[in-house]
Amino acid sequence: MSDTEEAARHRAKMEKRKAVQDAEVASKTIEKGLLLVNTGPGKGKSTAAFGLLLRMQGHGRPCGVVQFIKGAWSTGERHVLEGFGPLVEWHSMGEGFTWETQDRARDVAAAEAAWAKALALMAREDLALLVLDELCIALRYGYLDTDAVVAALRARRPSLHVVATGRNAPPALIEAADLVTEMGLVKHHFAAGVKAQQGIEF
Amino acid sequence: MSDTEEAARHRAKMEKRKAVQDAEVASKTIEKGLLLVNTGPGKGKSTAAFGLLLRMQGHGRPCGVVQFIKGAWSTGERHVLEGFGPLVEWHSMGEGFTWETQDRARDVAAAEAAWAKALALMAREDLALLVLDELCIALRYGYLDTDAVVAALRARRPSLHVVATGRNAPPALIEAADLVTEMGLVKHHFAAGVKAQQGIEF
Repeated sequence: MSDTEEAARHRAKMEKRKAVQDAEVASKTIEKGLLLVNTGPGKGKSTAAFGLLLRMQGHGRPCGVVQFIKGAWSTGERHVLEGFGPLVEWHSMGEGFTWETQDRARDVAAAEAAWAKALALMAREDLALLVLDELCIALRYGYLDTDAVVAALRARRPSLHVVATGRNAPPALIEAADLVTEMGLVKHHFAAGVKAQQGIEF
Repeated sequence: MSDTEEAARHRAKMEKRKAVQDAEVASKTIEKGLLLVNTGPGKGKSTAAFGLLLRMQGHGRPCGVVQFIKGAWSTGERHVLEGFGPLVEWHSMGEGFTWETQDRARDVAAAEAAWAKALALMAREDLALLVLDELCIALRYGYLDTDAVVAALRARRPSLHVVATGRNAPPALIEAADLVTEMGLVKHHFAAGVKAQQGIEF
């Protein structure tokens, strides 16, 4: 096959693919606030949620953040979030990881306070996106009642996007979600003895 | 079991867990620039890469971005990246998706120009992080030679972190990587007829 024939074949194939692609895009017409869940053992769950917040900031839209596990918060994000000023309302609630506090009653109280803050943010009329960082951990440990949390998320203002992160998302949350991504761990540098580094883990 | 007994049991369990956790952290001593790969069919590959860039910005560290597929770029990220000023050098290279250009020779030339820009950024001494957005697509379509790309990534300055994104990361890239996350698609709102929305997809 000559170069010209090859190029023509490529073009024909891609013309067909473009038609399929365009029809796909045209078939999607619904606009709604999404419930997104980033779960799984891999890296990138919270990072992708903050990437979404960054994208929203690019459009100048107000966002809220509630962190359910304090130790999971990275100093890098904190500085940047502060830089966005009033467009981002964020609350680092919750206690550290359970093995840091060693006090279940305190962990439960902290999770409840964080959830109350999340409800308050959901009641704001102007918010485009609410990040519930490590919510799945609080559900997993039974600090919050999953059914009550899912019911409140389902009953939220229809235009509000919510991202919940954390390992082991419960089935009821996945059921209620519009988009679920499972971050799978294919390979991790911790296993090779590499430590947590600035800008990567914190 | 009384509440006091339950609390004591919880504390004992968590003390043990903390000891394991602390030993884990102490065992990791290596510092090095990482090669991270975000691949898989799910959402969040590029979003997590930009979340990492956001974290680096929180530490005031210079970052570079090269985009290998132009259409994949979202206006939201662009505005925010511009807001970071000289700390982020970004290049939206490459052509649109293959089915948009319908011209393979043009796609190859654009990918080669993008890769040349990536090599130039890798040569900068001050960069903390380089994002190679949708590099895997350019490799997948054979626009670039995978062996040459992987060899250059392996030969980079040891302290430089690199994140490559895109579906279908080739085995040689995964082999060379320190951290690989496979974003799995559990559920997607496009399947339910929801269209691309501001701040979520662009």
